[in-house]
Amino acid sequence: MSIPRDVLIVGDEKAAQRFIEEFRRGIPLALYFIASTKTSIIPGISIAGPSPEGTLYTPALDVEYLVAGRPLTLNVIPMTPEGLPTPALLTRVALSMLSIPYMVVDAGSYIEPRIPHVDLPSRRVGERIDTGKALLVEVARALFEESRILAEMVVPSGGSVIVGESIPGGTTTAMAIMEALGFRAIGKVSSAGPNNPHELKKRVFEEGIKNSGLAIPTSNVFEAVAAIGDPLHISIAGFVVGALSRNSRILLAGGTQMCAVLAILKKFGIELRERVAIGTTRWTVKDPSSDIEGLVRDIAPEVPIIATALNLGDAPFPGLRMYEQGFVKEGVGAGGTIVALTLLRGVELDELKKAIYNEYQRLLQIGAAKGIDARS
Amino acid sequence: MSIPRDVLIVGDEKAAQRFIEEFRRGIPLALYFIASTKTSIIPGISIAGPSPEGTLYTPALDVEYLVAGRPLTLNVIPMTPEGLPTPALLTRVALSMLSIPYMVVDAGSYIEPRIPHVDLPSRRVGERIDTGKALLVEVARALFEESRILAEMVVPSGGSVIVGESIPGGTTTAMAIMEALGFRAIGKVSSAGPNNPHELKKRVFEEGIKNSGLAIPTSNVFEAVAAIGDPLHISIAGFVVGALSRNSRILLAGGTQMCAVLAILKKFGIELRERVAIGTTRWTVKDPSSDIEGLVRDIAPEVPIIATALNLGDAPFPGLRMYEQGFVKEGVGAGGTIVALTLLRGVELDELKKAIYNEYQRLLQIGAAKGIDARS
Repeated sequence: MSIPRDVLIVGDEKAAQRFIEEFRRGIPLALYFIASTKTSIIPGISIAGPSPEGTLYTPALDVEYLVAGRPLTLNVIPMTPEGLPTPALLTRVALSMLSIPYMVVDAGSYIEPRIPHVDLPSRRVGERIDTGKALLVEVARALFEESRILAEMVVPSGGSVIVGESIPGGTTTAMAIMEALGFRAIGKVSSAGPNNPHELKKRVFEEGIKNSGLAIPTSNVFEAVAAIGDPLHISIAGFVVGALSRNSRILLAGGTQMCAVLAILKKFGIELRERVAIGTTRWTVKDPSSDIEGLVRDIAPEVPIIATALNLGDAPFPGLRMYEQGFVKEGVGAGGTIVALTLLRGVELDELKKAIYNEYQRLLQIGAAKGIDARS
Repeated sequence: MSIPRDVLIVGDEKAAQRFIEEFRRGIPLALYFIASTKTSIIPGISIAGPSPEGTLYTPALDVEYLVAGRPLTLNVIPMTPEGLPTPALLTRVALSMLSIPYMVVDAGSYIEPRIPHVDLPSRRVGERIDTGKALLVEVARALFEESRILAEMVVPSGGSVIVGESIPGGTTTAMAIMEALGFRAIGKVSSAGPNNPHELKKRVFEEGIKNSGLAIPTSNVFEAVAAIGDPLHISIAGFVVGALSRNSRILLAGGTQMCAVLAILKKFGIELRERVAIGTTRWTVKDPSSDIEGLVRDIAPEVPIIATALNLGDAPFPGLRMYEQGFVKEGVGAGGTIVALTLLRGVELDELKKAIYNEYQRLLQIGAAKGIDARS
């Protein structure tokens, strides 16, 4: 079996091939975890929202749009005034073509999404990590445990599980988690904009470490997450542990943030070989301002990165072409969901692109009906 | 293919056979819906709790025990002082032997269960139905719609879906829904005790109709549910509609209450033939104080009832033998989950019983460790 031409492999090609073979055989399921960290309201950290405070609403709006076709909590269209759409657009289109079971998991969204979703009982918004008190240790531990149990409940035995995420500020907290656990991540995580605020992320992290009194590097995952982490990555790590106990393969659908999940799993001594892969976008792996390849090589070189080759450079809409200029890059499991579409359904990217354009057109029409010109 | 000897068929045997054949082929999934109706605090209506007010906690405690092996919200063991256990014990044992994906759905529990669960955004505790104002019409409609969407999200295409429930007071609200929709249900619904308070249920219903001003019979499902229904049955009906759109078979895992779901579905003109069955217990179909066979014959004769033949008359624990004296009978999808175990895994009832005894023994030991004598 060869690797489909619509995906790019970064890292061990043989490992990727074996993962793909197994992944194609399993019963598929997709989950999209959402949470907030108040780190995202630090000016300059995140552009995943109309304003720093607005980023707190983004995860709920993203999954509302994903499920219902439009945000429900706020009467907005899920794109910027320039017409740059949420990556959930790509996820929604790919998911609809995949036609597999999926769910949304709230690990600590600032607002409850107005669509059916799984709630973790200990869900909680993370505090700004520069305080050094992002979460209570008990909460970090409970989120891990509840997510592990969730996986034992919902993952089919021998499943092929796609796990995506939406958490503005997440690359900053992911960087902090990796650094605290002893991996060099400063300057290597991605960003939703073309200008990656590496210096600011570093300052926020260092301030958090100072205020927490945490001695780093540490192997105490829960203390690290409690100091400078967030509710999302620890939840996804717990979920992966539970899913692996169901003999499943897991495609971590995200960019450099998923390396924080790998870092947590490695600290727990979890065997990842041929069981876990990262599924992401070409925009992430080619990003000159971040280094997902280097992160994976340092943390878990046995984990392959499988990126969709999707290129929107010839899209008929300027908003979609912005993806080729370094905007967004990844989010809400977009890359991994498209990778799954290629692996499980063999859908060609040209067919996917047509569906993306139709969906984008639909959003523009909703915007026009609301008197919003998305391209103003 | 013959019908396994561990199940009893009530109704059309040919239809049951065809349903079973299809059900065995699908990808399995189980869901347990929980909700509360304040109807359960009317003295005498429900014994599914230590006191009338205590019944409001039962659904959450049931699913906490189902998932985590013990109630989490309260430090209790899930049985009465006489040692009569929750039917969730049967569900838990069967589910563990089934090893299929499952989830808990909160449609309006009085307390949030401390295990991972799906939340419907419009979840709400139902008011006492004797007020005639059980729910807002918009809420009834939203719960239906959200559950339909949930099914479209989580049900695999060609799935075999088991849907159970826990709602104290539910036979009263189910009776009221069926009556309001024009089916004769007074005197026919079941009860968790051997003395079925038919007269009281009837009075509560009639008071509710009077106070609502609803002209009955009506074909307006949402108005009926809003007047004298509850959050659970309308949610399950919405879920069934969504699951059918995913080309699935649905085993309604419950007793006479599930006839209210059938009544709602019939009013919506949903085709049920060979797609929906009721899965329940021998205790329900043999109950002299209720008439599930008559209800199904009136409402949807094309729907077969498949009951597990499980008999606990020779159990070594008096608390379990109480099931043979008309206590509990059904709940938390016990019967249907055991039916699924028989159909999907071919597990013999003797093997199941051993596992039930082990689990019961485990609960007694927890009780003893807590200084609770469950048989005092």
